[in-house]
Amino acid sequence: MISRRLRLGMVGGGKGAFFGAVHRQAAAMTQRYEFIAGALSSDPARAAESGRELLLAPERSYSDFMKMADTETLRDDGIDLVAVVTPNHLHAAASGAFLAAGISVMCDKPLTATLEEALSLEKIAKNSGALLGVSYTNAGFEMVREARSIVESGALGNIRVIRAEFPQEWLATAEETAGNKQAKWRTDPAQSGAGSLGDIGTHAFHLAEFVTGQRCVSVSAEVDTFVAGRRVDDNASVQLRFSNGAKGTLWASQIAIGRTNGLRLEIYGDKASLGWGVEEANILYLCPLGKQRIVIDRASHGTSVKGHLPSGHAQGFVEALARLYVDMAECLEASLLGNPAPASANLLPGLDDGVRGMKFINAVLRSGHDDGRWTAF
Amino acid sequence: MISRRLRLGMVGGGKGAFFGAVHRQAAAMTQRYEFIAGALSSDPARAAESGRELLLAPERSYSDFMKMADTETLRDDGIDLVAVVTPNHLHAAASGAFLAAGISVMCDKPLTATLEEALSLEKIAKNSGALLGVSYTNAGFEMVREARSIVESGALGNIRVIRAEFPQEWLATAEETAGNKQAKWRTDPAQSGAGSLGDIGTHAFHLAEFVTGQRCVSVSAEVDTFVAGRRVDDNASVQLRFSNGAKGTLWASQIAIGRTNGLRLEIYGDKASLGWGVEEANILYLCPLGKQRIVIDRASHGTSVKGHLPSGHAQGFVEALARLYVDMAECLEASLLGNPAPASANLLPGLDDGVRGMKFINAVLRSGHDDGRWTAF
Amino acid sequence: MISRRLRLGMVGGGKGAFFGAVHRQAAAMTQRYEFIAGALSSDPARAAESGRELLLAPERSYSDFMKMADTETLRDDGIDLVAVVTPNHLHAAASGAFLAAGISVMCDKPLTATLEEALSLEKIAKNSGALLGVSYTNAGFEMVREARSIVESGALGNIRVIRAEFPQEWLATAEETAGNKQAKWRTDPAQSGAGSLGDIGTHAFHLAEFVTGQRCVSVSAEVDTFVAGRRVDDNASVQLRFSNGAKGTLWASQIAIGRTNGLRLEIYGDKASLGWGVEEANILYLCPLGKQRIVIDRASHGTSVKGHLPSGHAQGFVEALARLYVDMAECLEASLLGNPAPASANLLPGLDDGVRGMKFINAVLRSGHDDGRWTAF
Amino acid sequence: MISRRLRLGMVGGGKGAFFGAVHRQAAAMTQRYEFIAGALSSDPARAAESGRELLLAPERSYSDFMKMADTETLRDDGIDLVAVVTPNHLHAAASGAFLAAGISVMCDKPLTATLEEALSLEKIAKNSGALLGVSYTNAGFEMVREARSIVESGALGNIRVIRAEFPQEWLATAEETAGNKQAKWRTDPAQSGAGSLGDIGTHAFHLAEFVTGQRCVSVSAEVDTFVAGRRVDDNASVQLRFSNGAKGTLWASQIAIGRTNGLRLEIYGDKASLGWGVEEANILYLCPLGKQRIVIDRASHGTSVKGHLPSGHAQGFVEALARLYVDMAECLEASLLGNPAPASANLLPGLDDGVRGMKFINAVLRSGHDDGRWTAF
Repeated sequence: MISRRLRLGMVGGGKGAFFGAVHRQAAAMTQRYEFIAGALSSDPARAAESGRELLLAPERSYSDFMKMADTETLRDDGIDLVAVVTPNHLHAAASGAFLAAGISVMCDKPLTATLEEALSLEKIAKNSGALLGVSYTNAGFEMVREARSIVESGALGNIRVIRAEFPQEWLATAEETAGNKQAKWRTDPAQSGAGSLGDIGTHAFHLAEFVTGQRCVSVSAEVDTFVAGRRVDDNASVQLRFSNGAKGTLWASQIAIGRTNGLRLEIYGDKASLGWGVEEANILYLCPLGKQRIVIDRASHGTSVKGHLPSGHAQGFVEALARLYVDMAECLEASLLGNPAPASANLLPGLDDGVRGMKFINAVLRSGHDDGRWTAF
Repeated sequence: MISRRLRLGMVGGGKGAFFGAVHRQAAAMTQRYEFIAGALSSDPARAAESGRELLLAPERSYSDFMKMADTETLRDDGIDLVAVVTPNHLHAAASGAFLAAGISVMCDKPLTATLEEALSLEKIAKNSGALLGVSYTNAGFEMVREARSIVESGALGNIRVIRAEFPQEWLATAEETAGNKQAKWRTDPAQSGAGSLGDIGTHAFHLAEFVTGQRCVSVSAEVDTFVAGRRVDDNASVQLRFSNGAKGTLWASQIAIGRTNGLRLEIYGDKASLGWGVEEANILYLCPLGKQRIVIDRASHGTSVKGHLPSGHAQGFVEALARLYVDMAECLEASLLGNPAPASANLLPGLDDGVRGMKFINAVLRSGHDDGRWTAF
Repeated sequence: MISRRLRLGMVGGGKGAFFGAVHRQAAAMTQRYEFIAGALSSDPARAAESGRELLLAPERSYSDFMKMADTETLRDDGIDLVAVVTPNHLHAAASGAFLAAGISVMCDKPLTATLEEALSLEKIAKNSGALLGVSYTNAGFEMVREARSIVESGALGNIRVIRAEFPQEWLATAEETAGNKQAKWRTDPAQSGAGSLGDIGTHAFHLAEFVTGQRCVSVSAEVDTFVAGRRVDDNASVQLRFSNGAKGTLWASQIAIGRTNGLRLEIYGDKASLGWGVEEANILYLCPLGKQRIVIDRASHGTSVKGHLPSGHAQGFVEALARLYVDMAECLEASLLGNPAPASANLLPGLDDGVRGMKFINAVLRSGHDDGRWTAF
Repeated sequence: MISRRLRLGMVGGGKGAFFGAVHRQAAAMTQRYEFIAGALSSDPARAAESGRELLLAPERSYSDFMKMADTETLRDDGIDLVAVVTPNHLHAAASGAFLAAGISVMCDKPLTATLEEALSLEKIAKNSGALLGVSYTNAGFEMVREARSIVESGALGNIRVIRAEFPQEWLATAEETAGNKQAKWRTDPAQSGAGSLGDIGTHAFHLAEFVTGQRCVSVSAEVDTFVAGRRVDDNASVQLRFSNGAKGTLWASQIAIGRTNGLRLEIYGDKASLGWGVEEANILYLCPLGKQRIVIDRASHGTSVKGHLPSGHAQGFVEALARLYVDMAECLEASLLGNPAPASANLLPGLDDGVRGMKFINAVLRSGHDDGRWTAF
């Protein structure tokens, strides 16, 4: 370990934003970062006020992320990492600016608003020595990692069926015309790219590939917009084919009344099945062929993932995101010290995961427009 | 009510069978039938032995269902109803024989092994004055009827998304080659017609239409056989389009390790959602837009379906099937007395439900063979 | 097996009653009884009408259970078994009359209204060659028997803590003054003996002893009546000491708003724990020391109790009671044939269980009146 | 708000400790504290190493908490708050030293090892202008506060029955002799005072009083030590009487195999009941009389407690503790600025809660020793 805290900046996340504050909580909780710079808003007054409230030094409270990247890269005490938590359409420009300046990035998902932006950013990222993490928060739940570890162990045998779903209710009506700021940009195609697919479908897709290690190769999709006047999808049901012959389904919906945040994954192999859902994030169901169902508690008997808390003490949402910041801290410190990449480099969602998410959205939308034709990607 | 018990016969259900015994239990439980005749097996010795064990009079223990139909129809004390619980490929012939003889039938699902047989039987049934019930057992759960009643009340508003699933584990390996008699005929296309689609997919399909009142008009399907050597489907994932614009999904699987009998239905409208599953058959989840989730207990506050037991006293599987036998008894008695059809005539699954199930299987298999092309039916 | 159905009579259970109809359903479902005689009400007109509706022959529809006992015992085709489903204060007289006449009895719980009546009945029963079963329905759930079998196997090691509870809500207000017939007699000390303790506390107590095989030797109780004007207990919390050193608690409440029928048992040994509740009657939780929690499905992997239905097909309340009638049929047939008592004789709740229930109520009430003093029984 | 972070110190929590790290995470997560001083161990070398790892300045890494109190109180940049996370027997001395020096304290529960120590500390605290918080973590769960708010609203009517339980499994065997450091001090009466009662019983007791607003006035207890050789209680079952006539039960056990951390509270009033458990910390069950059961999601429809995250994003254990640190920050800042006490002063567990916990333990142990005699406190 290096003998100082890592220096963290942020783009976006000013007053009124949602997820920036969660990123700051998560990073703070790890005690491995100090938050010292930000372009918290593109509006100078709002940026300044947000910076003041968050105790940033005035000279490190920017309103222009390009200037922030240029300035920070020149400082001896410049930031080691920037969290990009803007609306999606700014992810590529902001992340690209910092990566080009040699500063590592923790970018919120989806990676970008469009596949084209993702591919451009991919080039920049590959030419940069800096790191790119993508905040697929659910990959930070310990029981998601436990599930991945169980699959890797071969306990499920050959995977046959993968079922992922992510229903939410919050866009069941036209919230975007009712003054809900989050709804407004998330249903504006210019800012979000896609609707439920980008906002939560990518979470479900990443979770499915992250846990199973399988690669989806083709999709057949039914994509709907149920709320009148809405310009993006709010419900999508997708059939998936994986490279090894497994079949899957994925449902993303933001009009599922009664479901606050119902991400869930089920995996059926020929030796066992496994189930996990974020609403019961601290347990896993494991069902071996011909045996009784098993409930695995986080950090309890037979687990392989080291718990940050004893069993029975639930890991919450912020704590899951904090896990990604711990991974990033380990990767950054290894990089700063010239050490080989740590084990967590395999767990922290990165460039490839981000790009795949955009390819998934793109293929699903194309299949949906083409009456469900199987579409490779 | 008539002042005697209805006279019940059975085709199939001899020693070693499974579902015939459940039908006898269910009918007995209603106390409205006496079981007095049967062609319990096509093997004369087995038929006789089964009849003896079940206390049938020797002259009413047949081995040939054609003879049974011919004989019973001529007796003054002939049976009022016959339960047809043979393997699927005999449903059409047996049900047809009794209907043609003017004897009502409770036929197990799927209605027949093939769509062609179903259409032939449909003609016979329409020309017969006798009744045809189809034992979609789940339609007998009180909370399924409560769900239907809630949908009918308009509480869900316009239905947007319908999700049905029925995972089971019992065919995750090649049970049919391991001496399992039930597995053997259910995976033999000549006897069963289809695999998971016929055995459980039709249950899920009927449940979806029964509760929502919507009619599916087109399907796009991915149909798989995961167990090597198996000759029928054992996993099918289907996208559904309904006549009013609702979209749906249906998953039937008999290779889902860890799931004993996971039938579940979720319905999302623009005013509320509703969820029911057979593993928690005595409750419903109702989620009105903008309000807290509600758990409705069978026979408790705010229910409209009259309970056969006080709340908290669970209705089990046999009791659900018994409900269908009560419906049939009400219909039969009305018919015998020349009364108008009772309300339960709308609840007892019948000819149309049976035929639709066969059309569903047929369309799904065609779509699956055609790479998921949307297929109308 | 004998080659006829057993002949069943009933005392109580006429129009407007609740549990008599459940007993008739349960017995019918087994297909081993024919219901042919009854003293369904002490009111002659009501008795006659109830008998007609239930298709009893007029001469076997009595209004006086003494006359019924005297008459049936003399008939060649007299009843083999009578179900006594009257209010509690008639259990002793009715059961005693039939036992004295040599006719076996299935008596509803609690065995009697008072301990004195129970002890008198005990003498009669011991002098009678006839059988006495007590309808502690929960003992008929297959997973309760599975639990008992697991405990017997030694899997739990030495039992340390036993926790039983049975909360209900239906008497949270003064239903007895609002025209609820069931509430009226159940809260009338002259008819019921005790309140929640007799109605449901005895269920919880029997379940605890039935599953664990332990014998409670002393109680310390807090007994309350929360509803103004009520003359019996409606909430009781009891500490238990068992003969082998295990400690326990038992809670019976009929004022627990929101709980329809929450019977639950947890057993903690030094090698494992076990949990079962009637609201999830078809599964058991087993937690071995140092291992993951296991969910055991009825009739599934690793179970020892033979299921009457395949796994995943829930056993409901009537089906549980039917199990007791199957046990009784096996015992009766063995008795009629002069065979040794079958295995089910150890499972069917009987005289000793009934008497212990009354001793339990008596000790709890005495302890409650004496400020919780530990009271042996 | 003041324009700086609050300065936090810690006593205890060095290498190998458990709960100190959780306190540091929780405080960091709020972003309102900087951790800058500690007496992390009484062993100088261990204290120094722990301080280095946690990036403390060497001169503020103490091994003697008395010296730390004396030194920090004299510094211009001295700590505003100290977290006391030692074994219980040092709570009184450490907390007393800082309070006497005018430094506020967040003391872990139970407040002290003995009632005598608690009463001494109470005097010191009352003479100090500094604040004392007690880390009853569960009081930081938003749904616990929602529950308290619902009770305060009168929605439950008069409370009749309160049931609290906290089963754990981790001391089901003699862990204290197997090298488990946590088990060792927690089962040593000289360090812990009591066993399961102090470690978890006080949590359950605080939760019951915190949510209901009722005051327990008398207890009748059965206190056991099941593990051979253990010198403190490991299982206790308590009957409770409250000042307004409500009756309650409390079960604390550390030998409950299969239960990792099963804290649960149920409250039954005459208008509604309420249930919450830490294993489902983000929901509440509310059951109004004569209505259907309601599930209330954190931060969702109809909640009054402002959520720190949107509904469906679970608040975990560290986040609950962080909530107490936010409360303390608000109180401290109001104190530093000379403002009146904020609303959170009523929510942050404090001196009175800590002292009541010790009185509860004391009364329970006395009742247990006196064969369950009702014991006032």
